[in-house]
Amino acid sequence: VAELLPELIQEIVSAPERGEQDSIAALIAAQDTDDLALLLESLPIEQRLSVWSTIAKRKRLDVLVAMRGDPRETLIEATDLHEWEAIFHEVDAEQLLELADSLPSALMNKALEAMDKQQRQYFTDASQYTEQQIGHWLSQDPLVLPLNAKVRDALRLIRRDVPTHIDTVFLVNRAGQFSEAVKLTKVMGLPEHVPLVDLSEEEIDTINASDDFIQASVMLQRSGFASLPVVDENNKLLGRLDITTASELLNEYYERQMMATAGMDEDEDLFSSVKKSAQNRAVWLGINLLTAFLASAFIGLFAATLQQVVALAVLMPVVASMGGIAGSQTLTLMIRGLALGQVTVSNFRALLKKELYVGGLNGVTWALVIGIISYFWFADPMLGLVICLAIFFNIMAAAAAGVVVPVILNKFNIDPALSGSVILTTVTDIVGFVAFLGLGTMLLV
Amino acid sequence: VAELLPELIQEIVSAPERGEQDSIAALIAAQDTDDLALLLESLPIEQRLSVWSTIAKRKRLDVLVAMRGDPRETLIEATDLHEWEAIFHEVDAEQLLELADSLPSALMNKALEAMDKQQRQYFTDASQYTEQQIGHWLSQDPLVLPLNAKVRDALRLIRRDVPTHIDTVFLVNRAGQFSEAVKLTKVMGLPEHVPLVDLSEEEIDTINASDDFIQASVMLQRSGFASLPVVDENNKLLGRLDITTASELLNEYYERQMMATAGMDEDEDLFSSVKKSAQNRAVWLGINLLTAFLASAFIGLFAATLQQVVALAVLMPVVASMGGIAGSQTLTLMIRGLALGQVTVSNFRALLKKELYVGGLNGVTWALVIGIISYFWFADPMLGLVICLAIFFNIMAAAAAGVVVPVILNKFNIDPALSGSVILTTVTDIVGFVAFLGLGTMLLV
Repeated sequence: VAELLPELIQEIVSAPERGEQDSIAALIAAQDTDDLALLLESLPIEQRLSVWSTIAKRKRLDVLVAMRGDPRETLIEATDLHEWEAIFHEVDAEQLLELADSLPSALMNKALEAMDKQQRQYFTDASQYTEQQIGHWLSQDPLVLPLNAKVRDALRLIRRDVPTHIDTVFLVNRAGQFSEAVKLTKVMGLPEHVPLVDLSEEEIDTINASDDFIQASVMLQRSGFASLPVVDENNKLLGRLDITTASELLNEYYERQMMATAGMDEDEDLFSSVKKSAQNRAVWLGINLLTAFLASAFIGLFAATLQQVVALAVLMPVVASMGGIAGSQTLTLMIRGLALGQVTVSNFRALLKKELYVGGLNGVTWALVIGIISYFWFADPMLGLVICLAIFFNIMAAAAAGVVVPVILNKFNIDPALSGSVILTTVTDIVGFVAFLGLGTMLLV
Repeated sequence: VAELLPELIQEIVSAPERGEQDSIAALIAAQDTDDLALLLESLPIEQRLSVWSTIAKRKRLDVLVAMRGDPRETLIEATDLHEWEAIFHEVDAEQLLELADSLPSALMNKALEAMDKQQRQYFTDASQYTEQQIGHWLSQDPLVLPLNAKVRDALRLIRRDVPTHIDTVFLVNRAGQFSEAVKLTKVMGLPEHVPLVDLSEEEIDTINASDDFIQASVMLQRSGFASLPVVDENNKLLGRLDITTASELLNEYYERQMMATAGMDEDEDLFSSVKKSAQNRAVWLGINLLTAFLASAFIGLFAATLQQVVALAVLMPVVASMGGIAGSQTLTLMIRGLALGQVTVSNFRALLKKELYVGGLNGVTWALVIGIISYFWFADPMLGLVICLAIFFNIMAAAAAGVVVPVILNKFNIDPALSGSVILTTVTDIVGFVAFLGLGTMLLV
């Protein structure tokens, strides 16, 4: 994404050969923390550590915060204990919350000790919410004034440094409960004695700290505000959710969904150690192996048929492939619909019906195409008929499973993006092979 | 995502049976346009059209703009020609740009006629950029003042309605070139005669209208500003990119990536007509069919072997599955790395080496596991050896292809998320079957 990232990586990877270590150090010093984070993630471990050691200590905390989990941990492990004092020099609650999963508990304690009392309290408060809840990710720096504040109070507040993405002042009552929000642009140019309450927005949504982070982020994106107030169950103002945090949370969510389809998570490191990477992926290979052996077991039931009609063995991949692809199309559509809240109990039946019709139409079409091709290939009309019927059954089964499987997984709070495709492939493999070889046994032997 | 969407869908789907049409109309009138868009996408065509007809005409344009392409088109087709006058009543350039792909040319002309001269000019200007370029998606409503403007000028500008996500005033020179940006919060409370130039931000990035929309969106997200100036190649200010647009563009990009893995696009409709949906998916099924037949052709070379050793046919899915899964893991990691700009010519070799080592480790592990299981299952040590070697070869081939294929596709500007998995599966199927059946022919027959 960073436009110059490829050039930068090129420079750094080829630097040792050219003996230009000094100019590299200058180049690295000129990068912002986001680019450094992406750069470090892109480098093989050895070079990653060498670049890491040239990054100024005051920058390192922000770089770690901006990195993904696994590559970040390679740096944390390689950092000497005595260096952490400088790195944690100005650590705040939000940074520590982001790092928490990557830090061993000794370093967590070190960081907590380095923080002032207020930040430590913020950290404790936010830690009460899970990573799925927006309370975990709020910013504790909104502009807050009492309900009876005037324009002059707002101006005084703003003269200090205003954090990014703040476009409103929040007004709270004496109990600290959120009451009103006033747009900063409305305050501008007005006489100092005007009460802020008179300028307040009629419609501003509040986010509950226990709300799901995706729903809260989308709510903010739609609101047109740069931040929305986050409150607890008693409407007490806890902080704000800002638009950049919301956007990052959504990006991470999408990335996680994408990685989940291959049984990985978004923390996966491009250059993790071979051992760690192999371990991460082994589980997924193992699960898939079980389902593959299951399919084999079903094929094994028809060993005698296969021996007599070897064309069946030759055509097995076609049956499996068509079912798998048709199923994955329906599944992908369903996963998105579930994520958007568009698939519910009430339209489930209509969806199933539509997908079965689509499966029926494509099933008939491709069953005929494949049947005819197979007929000519093996000069056997009955074989053509067998694969034609098997393809049709399998595409119909794929459509049904593509709708039903993700809905059931979702009901049990299992991410359909992660496990949907394994289950679906198992279904289409077994249905496909049993239909194909079963019909073959009946009609060809 | 909308918290109450499932309940809303439930209400609407079950309404006809309960004869509560009036309360439904009231419920729909209370929804904002984003929720209505999600709702309409979630309804089967018949109910979608019936809800559409109850939505106030002045809301319809915004609802269409918020919808995805395919479901939006079902509504456009069903809307009578005479209704468009009311719908296009206040259409602006940004809305029309969003709708452009969905509107037949007669309706495009109607919309262009309904716009005033300025908006039509905006539309023409933005249309010169492709949908990949950020110039296509800019907002033409920044706060702009001449370089010599004073605080009083800024205050006058702000007293009118300020569009959402504007946190700076842009200062331009006489040629209309972007020069400085001044934060609104810095203007507040200052004497009216202070020149704005004295308050300008030292560091603000400008976006070039021809920049890639992803890079521009990420740049804005990182900047901490709610909008950044968009300029042409002569630094002339064309407009701004705001944080909500950037965030929506990124969301769409991720959604497109996810749908692409199943050969669909993000406009796919949950409830499109069966015919259209079947057509959309048929191409992908056809492409996969070709690769499946290719795999079958290679299996066909070993028909004699399969007839003699039927266990090979039984175990074929295990070989194909392990290669496919291992390959898809590497591929997914590579697709993300390419999208982030982290995979380049310079670290390509290191990546290949690491993936081959990971493949080697998992290859040896699973080859042994599968070899031993197969040996016991079929009581044939040579068969165990054959599948053991085939699995190892195939996982290594999967690792190599998983790295090489997306890089080559990317070089030719083909989206690896779309076509990567088809090509990869073809490779792993063919390598797997040839290795397995070839070794079987040598060692078992």
